[in-house]
Amino acid sequence: MNGSCKKLDAIFRPRSVALVGITTANPEHWTRGFLEGYLKFDFPAHGRLYLVNPKGGKLEGLEVYKSIKDIPDSLDFVVGLVPSKSAPQLIKDSAAKGAGYIHFCTAGFSEIDEDEGKELESELLETARKYNVRIIGPNCLGVYCPKARMSFSELFPRESGRVGFISQSGGNSNYLIRQSALRGVRFSKVISIGNASDLNESDFLEYLAEDPETEVIAMYLEGIKNSDRFRKALAYAARKKSIVLLKGGATSAGARAVMGHTASIAGSRSIWQTLCRQLNIIQVENLDEMADMLVTLSFLPVPDGSRVLLFGGGGGSSVIIADEFERRGLTLPQLPDKVIAELREFSQAAGNFFNNPIDYSQSMEPANVRRALDILSRWGDFDLMVHFLVLSQSTRAADFPGGPLKLSHMPYPTAVVVAISIIPEETDRVYEYVNYYANEGVPVYFSYASAANAIKKVILHYRGRELHEKRTSEHQHRLYGGNSEVDLGLCS
Amino acid sequence: MNGSCKKLDAIFRPRSVALVGITTANPEHWTRGFLEGYLKFDFPAHGRLYLVNPKGGKLEGLEVYKSIKDIPDSLDFVVGLVPSKSAPQLIKDSAAKGAGYIHFCTAGFSEIDEDEGKELESELLETARKYNVRIIGPNCLGVYCPKARMSFSELFPRESGRVGFISQSGGNSNYLIRQSALRGVRFSKVISIGNASDLNESDFLEYLAEDPETEVIAMYLEGIKNSDRFRKALAYAARKKSIVLLKGGATSAGARAVMGHTASIAGSRSIWQTLCRQLNIIQVENLDEMADMLVTLSFLPVPDGSRVLLFGGGGGSSVIIADEFERRGLTLPQLPDKVIAELREFSQAAGNFFNNPIDYSQSMEPANVRRALDILSRWGDFDLMVHFLVLSQSTRAADFPGGPLKLSHMPYPTAVVVAISIIPEETDRVYEYVNYYANEGVPVYFSYASAANAIKKVILHYRGRELHEKRTSEHQHRLYGGNSEVDLGLCS
Repeated sequence: MNGSCKKLDAIFRPRSVALVGITTANPEHWTRGFLEGYLKFDFPAHGRLYLVNPKGGKLEGLEVYKSIKDIPDSLDFVVGLVPSKSAPQLIKDSAAKGAGYIHFCTAGFSEIDEDEGKELESELLETARKYNVRIIGPNCLGVYCPKARMSFSELFPRESGRVGFISQSGGNSNYLIRQSALRGVRFSKVISIGNASDLNESDFLEYLAEDPETEVIAMYLEGIKNSDRFRKALAYAARKKSIVLLKGGATSAGARAVMGHTASIAGSRSIWQTLCRQLNIIQVENLDEMADMLVTLSFLPVPDGSRVLLFGGGGGSSVIIADEFERRGLTLPQLPDKVIAELREFSQAAGNFFNNPIDYSQSMEPANVRRALDILSRWGDFDLMVHFLVLSQSTRAADFPGGPLKLSHMPYPTAVVVAISIIPEETDRVYEYVNYYANEGVPVYFSYASAANAIKKVILHYRGRELHEKRTSEHQHRLYGGNSEVDLGLCS
Repeated sequence: MNGSCKKLDAIFRPRSVALVGITTANPEHWTRGFLEGYLKFDFPAHGRLYLVNPKGGKLEGLEVYKSIKDIPDSLDFVVGLVPSKSAPQLIKDSAAKGAGYIHFCTAGFSEIDEDEGKELESELLETARKYNVRIIGPNCLGVYCPKARMSFSELFPRESGRVGFISQSGGNSNYLIRQSALRGVRFSKVISIGNASDLNESDFLEYLAEDPETEVIAMYLEGIKNSDRFRKALAYAARKKSIVLLKGGATSAGARAVMGHTASIAGSRSIWQTLCRQLNIIQVENLDEMADMLVTLSFLPVPDGSRVLLFGGGGGSSVIIADEFERRGLTLPQLPDKVIAELREFSQAAGNFFNNPIDYSQSMEPANVRRALDILSRWGDFDLMVHFLVLSQSTRAADFPGGPLKLSHMPYPTAVVVAISIIPEETDRVYEYVNYYANEGVPVYFSYASAANAIKKVILHYRGRELHEKRTSEHQHRLYGGNSEVDLGLCS
């Protein structure tokens, strides 16, 4: 790890943090979300949290200092919630307190398409350089790092995980964290970078590529500050970790929105597609698809191939899920006669019970499903199993008979589809099942199509990695006689 | 309307119905779903409902006859819930009571891939022919017709609508009805046809093509009994109504599942695709996409073109929704300077407020959104407006500020995306908004991608109809001097 990477590490382990510009009057004000986050994550019990507002007073039992200068302590990290015009002064004051990093949440810089905003952002950057302070933002939500007990929301999971996420949009980071957390995904570090005028996507990508706590890197990017550097960082990171990329601004209207959102130049869509293909990066089109990929990369053991055994309830459902999987190039092997004979021993013949998909809705007591799964597991001529559950196909009020099937110790990679529903009498049960499988560490999806898409893309990604590793290890063997770590000189 | 069509009409207005084989002992038994449906829809207050079970007794205040022969009345329609072996006898007994139609819910016929089942189904058909009774099914859920107060589930809406649905799967009909009802779609007639050994997809398609209560026809089909007849019926129906088709068994595994489910031959995927393109039929890949189409066809006024104005909250959301819409060929016109100047009068410049998508999250009081919409409506250089709402992008617990925007009387076709969420603190609010817009008659979607997909496909469909109508009227004018109804002789 070189100096730059080491230094960024300090962002994710501050001992003292100041929230500067937090509103004392109105508990509904957005700035209070940061205090709620740091309190929920118990930062004060592990570090020192300071609040600053010119009005002073007390908030949640903590003293509110009238000025950052009044804080009787040095600072590691400052969260700037001040108006854009006060930002340069905050840099100077923070530097005087020893802070190496300031996150500016504040908007109203280059993204507003007016000279004043652009000039302010230049001034911000000049001041930061002069006072040797690095900036995250402006116009962003900053850092969520559960291990460091830093969070810009109280709604995020407190547990750490293996996914690092760089997001140019704060709202998109909230959405991705919350929607994928529901399905068990946990994060090492999330950085909402906004306008990224100082520390940018390349800095954090280089950092996460080396970060031992991060195995999967997700990125929502609108534009790139230095494309040569970014390409290098991306190529390097893609060799070390799985990367999921959502490139915002792929269309002309999207690119216009990008300019107004974070003052970025979106770049050509085909260049991004080519880059992702070359580097074996999983490209997605929206945040739901990104969540699907993170769920898959986090929980699906690497399948040996793409032969899928589908089982669940419903004749029409079986037909549709079969189509959704095969349409995407996954195959559904037929059950051999031997397996069918074993299944026949304890279940009556009806409809699709002896097929793949196995529709057990008409012929099986829930207790026998377990027995059938054992028989199928012993057979084992497939690479993964997908269990599907659809409440709304019933004639009568919502229930899945027999409760959730325990699937976490199946001898094959296993996934579950629980069809999402907000029909009032169904939502609680859908949530309960999603939560059950998330806690079991089984990947869970909300539709057949999204499951098939994510599983297929991730299988292709793993295949790409294998090929690469094979090529690399042969190459290395020739060059270095088996030394497995090749130093690319990018961030080490 | 020819004899066959007229006769089918009797299915949908029975005065006396018998549920034969309903379980008296176990209230959890699936056969009870039919009784619940007929009671919930108040059939007994408008017609005569009879229950039959060899054990006799009483159920829900109704006498249970030990045999259909004991019913002191003639019958119009019989729901057969008896074991498959008793089915032929039930045909004879029903015929003796004057019933012209029997729906057999019972499974265990040709779909079980055993000689016994196939023979039973042949016997069923022969008996029906002999006794001049028409059969719906077997292996299906039969008829849902709110106007006739017939329903196989108590969970369906009681109000009638303009969508007719023919489904070869009972579970899929439940799913589609319930999931699209949530978003305001209402049905004229739904027929779950199962094995379709007597009355089949062509019979009901010809019927719905003529049915004045049906404007949109949806079909979930697995296989076709008589493809020449079906092609003709489809071509005829497609000239009169909008058709949405989900063809199950598009892949080899799907086709296998089709065989086990309803004993149908799935047929080639490319033939279906060509047919749909030629006939301007909207083809979909799953039931969620079908629901999206029904919502769009039911509620979106026909747009003049595909220029979309998007407005909602969130910088990152704006970028992604713009991409999702433009990627599918919808265009997002830029706001002209004049409109921007008007908007500037009462809102501060920030981010994407003066762009399309209009992101009002940072610059607008909810009250001013209305004012902005008025300005935009007066401008009007677009063909439809889409409002988007995403709860999970917030840092703090779920809320949309200001409550739902009243959009039903906007002077342009208007749609709403409410991002679906089963996060417990969000679901109620998402449901409330979906329900609000469904009641307003505004089409509501669960994701940007699904909204863009449905709107684009339906716009193309309407364009196809216009072209066809133009061609047809020119053709008719030449042939008939302006007589607008051409009788194709298929079902009239």
